[in-house]
Amino acid sequence: MARVRFQDDGCPVARSLDVIGDLWSMLIIRSALNGARRFGDFQIKLGVARNVLTARLRMLVEHGILELVPASDGTAYREYTLTAKGRGLFPVIVALRQWGEQFLFEDGEPESVMIDREQRQPVRRLELRAADNRLLGLDDIDVMQASPRGRSRPLGEAAVASRRRGSGART
Amino acid sequence: MARVRFQDDGCPVARSLDVIGDLWSMLIIRSALNGARRFGDFQIKLGVARNVLTARLRMLVEHGILELVPASDGTAYREYTLTAKGRGLFPVIVALRQWGEQFLFEDGEPESVMIDREQRQPVRRLELRAADNRLLGLDDIDVMQASPRGRSRPLGEAAVASRRRGSGART
Repeated sequence: MARVRFQDDGCPVARSLDVIGDLWSMLIIRSALNGARRFGDFQIKLGVARNVLTARLRMLVEHGILELVPASDGTAYREYTLTAKGRGLFPVIVALRQWGEQFLFEDGEPESVMIDREQRQPVRRLELRAADNRLLGLDDIDVMQASPRGRSRPLGEAAVASRRRGSGART
Repeated sequence: MARVRFQDDGCPVARSLDVIGDLWSMLIIRSALNGARRFGDFQIKLGVARNVLTARLRMLVEHGILELVPASDGTAYREYTLTAKGRGLFPVIVALRQWGEQFLFEDGEPESVMIDREQRQPVRRLELRAADNRLLGLDDIDVMQASPRGRSRPLGEAAVASRRRGSGART
């Protein structure tokens, strides 16, 4: 069954989720960022069915997130490596990690930790800052719809819905 | 069919995706961050089937991401508001937005823009920094498995797989 698509949505969040908004795709990307390169690596690490993994890897290659390259050890195998677009998902994975760390672990539960390779200390929380360097939270931002000519107006959710094409939206 | 679960995984990324790793949950959270509060708001904004929306909203309430409160206008309606845990997903949504902005729009395509409410300027890219404030990229970090007693060792993917319980992982 075809699902609703958001590839033409004016909202970059919806458009991103259209590409990577499923559990297995994100776990594959996480494993690739952690160094996984071969089909068997992903299968063992994720415990995912071969047909599911095959379909997700193909999709990630089609979207230019992974690419197939000759094996790094000179064998006849081919390996999956992240493109610049795939490596660009690093902040998404970090944000998911930090939310999980904050809200999904009990005190004392074993938990993996992201550290700075040089100083071997835990990294700081991701920060969103204004052009003038002020730290920004949820209540400090607005989302504006920009026209191609650069004019902006406040973005209502209705505007998002009306600009969605081919989505089957029931508005 | 029950899917593989990651709620006991030692990796905070996997545990987060176990809760919010589907398209509709993330789009509901995005809309809630943008101000949507009522069932009808979400349905119109997302163009999602009622049964899907009902199930996702119930799941998000069960996970403590949304809560039901009396309507803000004094009517008998109840509204969904984000808890602190739900508001904590703001960096995840920002990271998804910025990736989409960078990689999923053609030059000149209309696109919504996140701005700083005070200065009305686009926000900067999310930044990950070390304890000593150095800017960190993908090649500057390691992921360590921490024991409950605070000792850490390098995290191999095999360690993640072996600590996954009830996942049906084929290792």
